[in-house]
Amino acid sequence: MHLTQSTKCLMKTLLLIIVITVKSITVIAQERVEKYGVFELTLKGTDAGNPFVDLALTGTFSNGKNSFTPEGFYDGNGIYKIRFMPDKEGEWTYVTRSNHPDLNNKKGSFTCIAGKRKGPVRVKNVYQFAHADSTAFIPFGTTIYEWAFQLKDKQEETIASLKASPFNKARMLAVPPYKDRYINGPEKMTVFPFVGTSKANWDFSRFNPLFFQRLEENVKQLDSIGVQADLILFRPYDKGKWGFDMTNDETNQRFIRYMVARFAAFENIWWSMANENSFIRHLTDEDWDSYFQLVQKCDPYNHLRSIHNADRIYDYNKPWVTHVSLQYYNAVKVFAVSPMLRDMYRKPIVHDEINYEGNISSRWGQLSGEEMTRRFWIGYIGGAYVTHGETLEEGWISGGGKLTGTSPKRIEFLKKMIEAAPRDIKPLDPYYIMNLLGKYGSYYLYYLGDDKPKTWSFVLPDDELKRGMKFKIDLVDTWNMSTIPIAGEFEIDSVGRYSAFDKKKSIIKLPGKPYMAILIRRSDDGAIQSKERKRNELTDEE
Amino acid sequence: MHLTQSTKCLMKTLLLIIVITVKSITVIAQERVEKYGVFELTLKGTDAGNPFVDLALTGTFSNGKNSFTPEGFYDGNGIYKIRFMPDKEGEWTYVTRSNHPDLNNKKGSFTCIAGKRKGPVRVKNVYQFAHADSTAFIPFGTTIYEWAFQLKDKQEETIASLKASPFNKARMLAVPPYKDRYINGPEKMTVFPFVGTSKANWDFSRFNPLFFQRLEENVKQLDSIGVQADLILFRPYDKGKWGFDMTNDETNQRFIRYMVARFAAFENIWWSMANENSFIRHLTDEDWDSYFQLVQKCDPYNHLRSIHNADRIYDYNKPWVTHVSLQYYNAVKVFAVSPMLRDMYRKPIVHDEINYEGNISSRWGQLSGEEMTRRFWIGYIGGAYVTHGETLEEGWISGGGKLTGTSPKRIEFLKKMIEAAPRDIKPLDPYYIMNLLGKYGSYYLYYLGDDKPKTWSFVLPDDELKRGMKFKIDLVDTWNMSTIPIAGEFEIDSVGRYSAFDKKKSIIKLPGKPYMAILIRRSDDGAIQSKERKRNELTDEE
Repeated sequence: MHLTQSTKCLMKTLLLIIVITVKSITVIAQERVEKYGVFELTLKGTDAGNPFVDLALTGTFSNGKNSFTPEGFYDGNGIYKIRFMPDKEGEWTYVTRSNHPDLNNKKGSFTCIAGKRKGPVRVKNVYQFAHADSTAFIPFGTTIYEWAFQLKDKQEETIASLKASPFNKARMLAVPPYKDRYINGPEKMTVFPFVGTSKANWDFSRFNPLFFQRLEENVKQLDSIGVQADLILFRPYDKGKWGFDMTNDETNQRFIRYMVARFAAFENIWWSMANENSFIRHLTDEDWDSYFQLVQKCDPYNHLRSIHNADRIYDYNKPWVTHVSLQYYNAVKVFAVSPMLRDMYRKPIVHDEINYEGNISSRWGQLSGEEMTRRFWIGYIGGAYVTHGETLEEGWISGGGKLTGTSPKRIEFLKKMIEAAPRDIKPLDPYYIMNLLGKYGSYYLYYLGDDKPKTWSFVLPDDELKRGMKFKIDLVDTWNMSTIPIAGEFEIDSVGRYSAFDKKKSIIKLPGKPYMAILIRRSDDGAIQSKERKRNELTDEE
Repeated sequence: MHLTQSTKCLMKTLLLIIVITVKSITVIAQERVEKYGVFELTLKGTDAGNPFVDLALTGTFSNGKNSFTPEGFYDGNGIYKIRFMPDKEGEWTYVTRSNHPDLNNKKGSFTCIAGKRKGPVRVKNVYQFAHADSTAFIPFGTTIYEWAFQLKDKQEETIASLKASPFNKARMLAVPPYKDRYINGPEKMTVFPFVGTSKANWDFSRFNPLFFQRLEENVKQLDSIGVQADLILFRPYDKGKWGFDMTNDETNQRFIRYMVARFAAFENIWWSMANENSFIRHLTDEDWDSYFQLVQKCDPYNHLRSIHNADRIYDYNKPWVTHVSLQYYNAVKVFAVSPMLRDMYRKPIVHDEINYEGNISSRWGQLSGEEMTRRFWIGYIGGAYVTHGETLEEGWISGGGKLTGTSPKRIEFLKKMIEAAPRDIKPLDPYYIMNLLGKYGSYYLYYLGDDKPKTWSFVLPDDELKRGMKFKIDLVDTWNMSTIPIAGEFEIDSVGRYSAFDKKKSIIKLPGKPYMAILIRRSDDGAIQSKERKRNELTDEE
């Protein structure tokens, strides 16, 4: 994303050369790292004992008053690493601490230089997201649970598909689910998160660094095309075969620390504690509390944290949860829910599983493109965010590959509308009106969903409206992706206790089709318009 | 409710005689109290100092292993009281503890005898309620915020109206809201919760026992007709006039302890910490946490506890909240919400304010009877409970009096249907079906709301259905309160992965009107039927 391909290639080559000579030196590190890039300190030590269990290793990185102490990790073959993401330009110094004499008290420094990275995504203004540099981030997610476990060609295809899509966040599993094709198919796996090859011989006390190195490459691929990696730490789905969903608390905690040590320095990481967490039957909400807190403690950059439910919904009010990551299909079938969830949790609401566009025999994968698109609109109109998935012949949600559904184009159309709206839009008059997103006095977007009315009578909630204000109206066909301006201006006349009407009590003709929206924008106030236009400038992700 | 009027009258007279002689004796108490009735220990002491602030007084009541220690309270004129609700028949002994020598170490005993009381209402089976004796309690609430502050005649009228209504829970304020009519009207108040007559001279360190004695009579009146008192401790609504919503933490805590000491021994108490709590702007959620915990600590009987929101929704997941008491109108406008709230909170869901049937200028009081009824049905079909209110000319929600709306009769019709259903009904297949309450294999109630279909094709979720099972169908017109049996039996034929259909793939004719429901009950299994019929027997509240 930020370096040219040739520079990256050169850097990889140089790094390779350095790594080859690793046996003769003990510390390898870059001299310059761009802001929010990854500084990686490589240390050579002996690997006596089991460093996955016995190692204590941290680096403290300082720049004036700023100081961070990430944990390091063992990367196999006597190599230890500490990764760090600097958030400030200038000189950083570091010193290591370890119970391993070879790795202790290593000191050094590097320069953090300006770059194009915007920083990790954080919660902003309670219900929204923004990068650390305040650039708005509006999630339009998709689901590619198993893309990292596919053959290289398919992974490349996935990245190409994503790049051409509207999606800027991808939900992906850190650990593969048990499937026959990973045992017998062309995707047969030989490298697993733990040392071993099957349930008969896993050594849950030893990670397999190669597995994680590959996963890192996938996270970096997403970063290179500006996609956030919503990385799922735990999942059920082992059907008693591998047992990765049956590991004990000690193993789980070790796994969390190892994942955080390896991945936290990547700018585009979001932590998803689990997919369908309650299907991992032996883990209670108290276990998840402690795992959340462990991530929070170990991650110096405070990346976003949430959890995705099955039949028991975790309490998103808990302070270590940064945003809601809900699986509740009905919540995007009707208008009322997202505004209520905002009020209940006072956090950003992400509908992270709403059924998938597809035609499989399971009903969770049978949405038409129209219905997927409608659910997206209902979510965003309610001030929430929605995540896409596809179960057509290509099996996008499991393997990635090609997107063949009809919804992504429409989701892109919606994305452009939302990105072009004022940043501070929200559900308007939400206790009484269910389908209106906007900003009082300047911007109103009604979505009509399934309804097929033939007319719409001009009405707006009264807030911040005054007699004489003028508005322009566009009819939006969200399925056919057209925006048709209605001729003329609409002048506010009477402002009642709750509603405002225009002078002519206009009745707008509608085509009697579903999936229409009505966009109403202030047209008479040059000053406000230009201020808004400025605020609306999109931040180009590429 | 449980004693005949003449017995009650006799008891009152006897008590009066005893009280008249109070100056010459120091302890007054009943010898026999029915189970879940109120044992009241009256002690005579000096009233030097300010007993509302300085007094420490408890009674420990013991019966074998059972032991309770309620706080006592000062009732004015040198009278101190400790109330206790015994939950077990037999001999109870007690001993008092006090920092007031006159009141310390008083001992005695009484006999708890069998009666007809069922005990306080508690949460049962996660989402439901039952009395302490396990009799189901299905709340059908109404709202009479200010009825206790009206003239005696109007109070009597309210009780008569309630008695003739379906309502078995009443939301009522413990403290009146500021209104002109309480200053200048015929309802002019001379007795307030605190000593004083206006903002100029309140003594927030002294309660006015007469105010609370009257309120107790109102709670007892509700008890006498089998109505739960959802007693609201705090409320905004003072408009800067009285300042009862501006009291400081010390006063609030004293008020809570005084209320609990006086009211907890009444069987029919539910604690509602506040109405529209977030409109009391100076109190944070942390304040409410501490007030909840104070009630929990002081109430030996663990009466139900909740809080009713305004614009900031309290976290009902917190362990001291027994049930959800929500004000969110949209939550009962659509089908999806109640089942989701059940999953989110895993507590009973009570929609305690859904707008009111009425015709006032404020839009929260403009529901038609049809819409009030529809919202009730949507709530109960979603496995939740709903609370009624009326703002017609009589102003029921503020003053009580007569019920003149068209919804109460329909709510009664709904109540009878719900009471006649199996006790363990719940939303069925709730991630995909939004409008079906029932019990897999035996009882199904679809509610169609606004929809006006002309036909309904027989379909049920597949769970627990087998080929050959037979069902009867009733068409229910929820507005006209009729139940029309459809001729014939419907035999299950194919049971698919998700749905079951009948042999004839029946298409039932519907009248094309709104507010219809379809009731489908197993008809071929005599054993199941009779077991169910037994479980369905209503507990007569009177």
